[in-house]
Amino acid sequence: MSLKPLGDRVLIKPEAAEQKTASGLYIASNAQEKPQRGEVVAVGEGKLNDNGERLPMDVKPGDKVIYGKFGGNEVKIDGEDYLLMRVDDIYAIVE
Amino acid sequence: MSLKPLGDRVLIKPEAAEQKTASGLYIASNAQEKPQRGEVVAVGEGKLNDNGERLPMDVKPGDKVIYGKFGGNEVKIDGEDYLLMRVDDIYAIVE
Amino acid sequence: MSLKPLGDRVLIKPEAAEQKTASGLYIASNAQEKPQRGEVVAVGEGKLNDNGERLPMDVKPGDKVIYGKFGGNEVKIDGEDYLLMRVDDIYAIVE
Amino acid sequence: MSLKPLGDRVLIKPEAAEQKTASGLYIASNAQEKPQRGEVVAVGEGKLNDNGERLPMDVKPGDKVIYGKFGGNEVKIDGEDYLLMRVDDIYAIVE
Amino acid sequence: MSLKPLGDRVLIKPEAAEQKTASGLYIASNAQEKPQRGEVVAVGEGKLNDNGERLPMDVKPGDKVIYGKFGGNEVKIDGEDYLLMRVDDIYAIVE
Amino acid sequence: MSLKPLGDRVLIKPEAAEQKTASGLYIASNAQEKPQRGEVVAVGEGKLNDNGERLPMDVKPGDKVIYGKFGGNEVKIDGEDYLLMRVDDIYAIVE
Amino acid sequence: MSLKPLGDRVLIKPEAAEQKTASGLYIASNAQEKPQRGEVVAVGEGKLNDNGERLPMDVKPGDKVIYGKFGGNEVKIDGEDYLLMRVDDIYAIVE
Repeated sequence: MSLKPLGDRVLIKPEAAEQKTASGLYIASNAQEKPQRGEVVAVGEGKLNDNGERLPMDVKPGDKVIYGKFGGNEVKIDGEDYLLMRVDDIYAIVE
Repeated sequence: MSLKPLGDRVLIKPEAAEQKTASGLYIASNAQEKPQRGEVVAVGEGKLNDNGERLPMDVKPGDKVIYGKFGGNEVKIDGEDYLLMRVDDIYAIVE
Repeated sequence: MSLKPLGDRVLIKPEAAEQKTASGLYIASNAQEKPQRGEVVAVGEGKLNDNGERLPMDVKPGDKVIYGKFGGNEVKIDGEDYLLMRVDDIYAIVE
Repeated sequence: MSLKPLGDRVLIKPEAAEQKTASGLYIASNAQEKPQRGEVVAVGEGKLNDNGERLPMDVKPGDKVIYGKFGGNEVKIDGEDYLLMRVDDIYAIVE
Repeated sequence: MSLKPLGDRVLIKPEAAEQKTASGLYIASNAQEKPQRGEVVAVGEGKLNDNGERLPMDVKPGDKVIYGKFGGNEVKIDGEDYLLMRVDDIYAIVE
Repeated sequence: MSLKPLGDRVLIKPEAAEQKTASGLYIASNAQEKPQRGEVVAVGEGKLNDNGERLPMDVKPGDKVIYGKFGGNEVKIDGEDYLLMRVDDIYAIVE
Repeated sequence: MSLKPLGDRVLIKPEAAEQKTASGLYIASNAQEKPQRGEVVAVGEGKLNDNGERLPMDVKPGDKVIYGKFGGNEVKIDGEDYLLMRVDDIYAIVE
């Protein structure tokens, strides 16, 4: 099974939870959102502008990205966890 | 009886509740919205832009889709449950 | 007395309350809005876009429609209850 | 004294309070807004679009209209109560 | 000292407080905003649209106007109270 | 050290606190925002419209201006207090 | 490891915490946001307008900037703290 994200959405495979503490809890942070890392698995065709044209997507499959903790929706595919989020919720590409 | 969704709305037949636990309750989730699956039954003609033109719809009848738990409105047709939601609330097509 | 809805508004005659229980109460629902049914009685000329042009209306008098429970304003005409709502708050046409 | 409403505003003379109960209280309603009736007394020149052009007004002096209970601002002219509201807060014309 | 309002702002000299009761308190009102009266003293050059052009102003110095109670910011000039508000917060011109 | 404000932002040197009472506290006000005075020290190049063009700025260095109490962000330069705010949060020029 | 910010985002290296008190706490402020300083490390290609064109970025790597305390998201790169924020959340360039 695979997913084709719609519009400006991106499918991301989150990195393993190395940010967790030994006890399995996330480290508290003062920041409202804690950026996290993952790899882009699939991207939508782009957002439709008001003329029905697609806007370009800033990421492609294989990109390692940083994103906000609350920016996406969790989905399970073949027993593994993925995230679906809008491309504008991705902060940066890791190079 | 059948429904013709208006504008950018989509009629979806949700999958059977295999995500329910044995006791019939939904599994708790940290995520604000739990994506769910269903099949597109009917689609509207598309959203009107400010020039009165229709924007294309990204799904078609027969597509299996992932959508957010709170993205639609429940409606009962001939005794069965359906959802009516805007196409932008559909996250991805399952292939 | 009759009403001519303004702009993108629609006048709807709700169906009789067959969704009520025997005791006269509405059945509780998990959904935030419970879609309801009615018949379109009159439609406005359409929403004005920023150029002063009218956008087309997706429903016409006689259409049976599904709409959200909280999408309109109740009005009494000659002793009967009607709803006035914007066309975008109508979900689908029943065929 | 008379008022010239600005932009897309409309001056309305509300109908006498025949919707009040004998005790002078308004009848409770489940609806969030209870539509009310009145007569259009004066209308503004229309809303300015972003090009500085006026959009047409959908009502004219003399029209009997239905509007929401919370859609306007009360103003007293020569001892009588009037309402000033935007034309988009008027639901329909009574014919 | 004089003030030149910026953009779509208007400088208004409120009328003397004849709406106050003898005890100096404002009369309670059911309406969310109580319209008030004043005279336009100075007007800005108009709001900039997205092309950098000015939109016309609907009032001019000397106009007597009705405005909402909470629509402006108080400012004291040479010991007298004035209001600075956006022209869209002015409801009507008194003629 | 000097600051070059970005976009539609303006750097303002607030006037000395003559509005303070003898005890050093601000006088209470019924108004939600109390306008204050200062002098424009530096202005940004202007807001970018959607075509990447700059919109004109309505103030220039040296202008004495009136602004809302909560409209800007405090910044300390070489031990003195300044405010950085958007030009639209400036109400008027004092002449 | 390095980061390439997306769209209108900027990567900033905050200045050392000289604004902290001896006890390591931030000084309380009446202002809703306390501007802070840092150096721009990397900038995105610019925001996409509705035609798919990039808008220019007002900062470049090496610029010393002032920004709001709550305007960005913290990210750790090779053990050091950085901020990712939209260019519009940067107030000014220090010269």
